[in-house]
Amino acid sequence: MAVAVIMAGGRGERLWPLSRSSRPKQFISWKRHSFFRATVDRVKPIVGAENIYVVTQKKYRELILKQAPLIPPSNIIVEPQGKNTAPCIGLAAVIISALKNPEEIMIILPADHFIGDEEAFQKLIRFACRVANDNFLVTLGITPLYPHTGYGYIHYGDSYYKEEIEAFKVLKFTEKPDLETARKYLKEGRYLWNSGIFIWKARVILEEMRKYMPDLYQGLMKIKESIGTPQEKEVMGEVFKNLENISIDYGIMEKTDRALVIPADIKWSDVGSWAALEEILKKDQQGNIVLNKHLGIDTQNCIIWTKKPVVTLGIKNLVVVETDDVIFLMPKSHSQKVRLVIEALKEEREFKKLL
Amino acid sequence: MAVAVIMAGGRGERLWPLSRSSRPKQFISWKRHSFFRATVDRVKPIVGAENIYVVTQKKYRELILKQAPLIPPSNIIVEPQGKNTAPCIGLAAVIISALKNPEEIMIILPADHFIGDEEAFQKLIRFACRVANDNFLVTLGITPLYPHTGYGYIHYGDSYYKEEIEAFKVLKFTEKPDLETARKYLKEGRYLWNSGIFIWKARVILEEMRKYMPDLYQGLMKIKESIGTPQEKEVMGEVFKNLENISIDYGIMEKTDRALVIPADIKWSDVGSWAALEEILKKDQQGNIVLNKHLGIDTQNCIIWTKKPVVTLGIKNLVVVETDDVIFLMPKSHSQKVRLVIEALKEEREFKKLL
Repeated sequence: MAVAVIMAGGRGERLWPLSRSSRPKQFISWKRHSFFRATVDRVKPIVGAENIYVVTQKKYRELILKQAPLIPPSNIIVEPQGKNTAPCIGLAAVIISALKNPEEIMIILPADHFIGDEEAFQKLIRFACRVANDNFLVTLGITPLYPHTGYGYIHYGDSYYKEEIEAFKVLKFTEKPDLETARKYLKEGRYLWNSGIFIWKARVILEEMRKYMPDLYQGLMKIKESIGTPQEKEVMGEVFKNLENISIDYGIMEKTDRALVIPADIKWSDVGSWAALEEILKKDQQGNIVLNKHLGIDTQNCIIWTKKPVVTLGIKNLVVVETDDVIFLMPKSHSQKVRLVIEALKEEREFKKLL
Repeated sequence: MAVAVIMAGGRGERLWPLSRSSRPKQFISWKRHSFFRATVDRVKPIVGAENIYVVTQKKYRELILKQAPLIPPSNIIVEPQGKNTAPCIGLAAVIISALKNPEEIMIILPADHFIGDEEAFQKLIRFACRVANDNFLVTLGITPLYPHTGYGYIHYGDSYYKEEIEAFKVLKFTEKPDLETARKYLKEGRYLWNSGIFIWKARVILEEMRKYMPDLYQGLMKIKESIGTPQEKEVMGEVFKNLENISIDYGIMEKTDRALVIPADIKWSDVGSWAALEEILKKDQQGNIVLNKHLGIDTQNCIIWTKKPVVTLGIKNLVVVETDDVIFLMPKSHSQKVRLVIEALKEEREFKKLL
């Protein structure tokens, strides 16, 4: 038996001003659906709608129920405050242990990724569940297409579990590399992009947390004891307030010896920046990605995401975004620096409302 | 006695998309007034409202009466079709000769220029009228501030007429120079920018047209004979259809030996392009010219003319324009190439309405 745990509390800051505090990246509709809804639809055939859980913040609860009314409202786990992935996953693990079964396999999915090959994804996840059933920490590692410096990498060793598909021993989780290192990884082979997709039993991840993140584990046990009591909310709030803001990668995956990785070729992108739109959308003949009408004279390799028609003359490698309330411009090369904008907006009284 | 003739039929294409076919540059309100209205207000103390004539196209007639209700409606001279300055001025000369007096002095003013020092302008124009009274073709030549390559230059010789102010013999009208030539002009001195402001008697300019532009002159005489007859409009349309599209500079000023120029230091700009806004508007500390709210991170020397707030990250020397129906972007260095956009718009069915 397996459940899906969709992590949908993130802010998607690097896609500002499309991604906003009130409607972050995972809830923006692209073509028909949001990434969140696409994540739900993608995992539903595996676990069934009644086994899809969503961890999120209170302010996104209504949006989630509206975008995915098939999910039982009681399956929405509201974090007292937005934290990194380790507390988020730990909370889901204790709640699922308590409400369902500690042996339940959790398929943990970020809500804001693009996956182009759904069939391959589903096949890999079903295999990953069988591997996880043997008490491994399983992750999907994306077959790298080019030396991306915006992703973490997973270095893998020997084959450890083999059916039609293979799972390999994880040697090392690495941080985002510089370009030279990324090139070396691709040349060496045996490196995969860290997808943030994990598959493991609730009991197994909690065991690892007890070992490698004892403070988190103690907090989670307090929460566990409070479940179903009148103090449940209060305890959860108190515990979360003091939890360290640590990712599951840093807290567990870099330390555990129980991790296996399954290479996945599923047309994946984390759509982590404006430049990353190039990974999921088609360019026109001049290399531009355009949402609305665009007349480009001597214009190449731009990303033009606007409501109004746009005319450009002699423009290259520019990102142009227009929403109802703001116009945003940067060179494509600055795509990873949008957080500077978020910081600046917070400082300017007149611009705060654009966050 | 003098009249003002304001030429207000132009299209101002290089300020697209602010300047539009339906409301070109001269009719756009900048701070309080449009350039057209400012031109009216500037010349009114010299000639009186009842002696201000406007030559324009039919489609701008209502706009003119709305922006300058002090002008008698019968003073609006409608060209059957937009032509260059020689036919426009010739038409005004025959009409003013017929309705007023051939000896009337015409103060010919483009409607779409900026003049910062109105007092100096008025003083120079009054002097120019006295010079023109002696049957000269008089023009104001702007004291050049830097080697501008977007303006024509006037090379001048000996002093010819002197009061407190001086008028000099025109040696040569020259076309827009390249940068090297423009630098040479400034170094040599005795070169002025061609302002397009002319002062002469109606009779005198018509005499010069008879000599140097006989085809135009013949056409104008046909129009003259028809004035006040039922055929007036028909004749004017027929004549205009066949007139050559020639500027007064090329048609007369480059050939005549009766031209005098008065050096004018009047904080003038033709606001002939987006980059030219720098000549009339203040830059902020980062060298940006901004209409609306702007949050610039690592952003310098941009012109940001928008309705919505704009946020920029790592942007330099960019022109950003937003109107109700379009967003336009180009490097500042392309300011003289906006006509390429106009040409392209004409070719694109979906974009034609943006002309």
